[in-house]
Amino acid sequence: MYSDEYFMKIALDEAKLAFDTDEVPVGAIVTINGKIIAAAHNLTETLIDVTAHAEMQAITAAENYLAAKYLNDCTLYVTVEPCVMCAGALGWSQISRIVYGASDEKRGFTRFAPNALHPKTTVIAGVLHSECENLMKEFFKKKRRN
Amino acid sequence: MYSDEYFMKIALDEAKLAFDTDEVPVGAIVTINGKIIAAAHNLTETLIDVTAHAEMQAITAAENYLAAKYLNDCTLYVTVEPCVMCAGALGWSQISRIVYGASDEKRGFTRFAPNALHPKTTVIAGVLHSECENLMKEFFKKKRRN
Repeated sequence: MYSDEYFMKIALDEAKLAFDTDEVPVGAIVTINGKIIAAAHNLTETLIDVTAHAEMQAITAAENYLAAKYLNDCTLYVTVEPCVMCAGALGWSQISRIVYGASDEKRGFTRFAPNALHPKTTVIAGVLHSECENLMKEFFKKKRRN
Repeated sequence: MYSDEYFMKIALDEAKLAFDTDEVPVGAIVTINGKIIAAAHNLTETLIDVTAHAEMQAITAAENYLAAKYLNDCTLYVTVEPCVMCAGALGWSQISRIVYGASDEKRGFTRFAPNALHPKTTVIAGVLHSECENLMKEFFKKKRRN
């Protein structure tokens, strides 16, 4: 079986696509039984839409793929801790597992909406933490320079 | 100027469109300077997508209309208290005012994510409360009968 690190690397590749188009670099994928069924990166600037976070698009795409509103057997890999909005959406989806890389102390759900997820959802934090965090730091350093 | 009740009636008309297609009956509109720039109703069943709440669609449509990510001068009217997901999205949008009808004690943001909104956002609750709540009650009564 593939490891969580393996899938997080793919989410990181998505985040790098966001970075390259001047979007806050967050990437996400959804898997079921080790198969990737959705991949997305943040598009809030491109679409001029605050709801276009990587996770939101990945949820919509995965539900579309499965033709089902619930993601009970799925795992979401996302490079940064989901925000309140995304955690709320993940709660509605009843997703089985969430694996994230870097923490987000300013906007993360664990601080602002700790009960947003479905009670059965498992959360794993810190997978490829440094790589995910460094990409964010590099982005905001570049922003400050401009 | 039009009153909050005036606009909530239009949001209620949207909610009734949801009711008629067997969707949880929630409707929302966004206004700017007394002009409606977005109108939407819950489409989660139709689109098989948990993110398709009325508020999410209304935010996306309003930002699209304004070609701007922020809704600082806008008011959202929604028939039921926003959930955690929608409150998170409204927080990102920095919307000026939120007016809602019925409270949602099971899923509402005031219970699960009380700090999700932008600090400058004003919230008015209970406008046409009974009409909004009765539509929800009627829907779930119908559901239980089926």
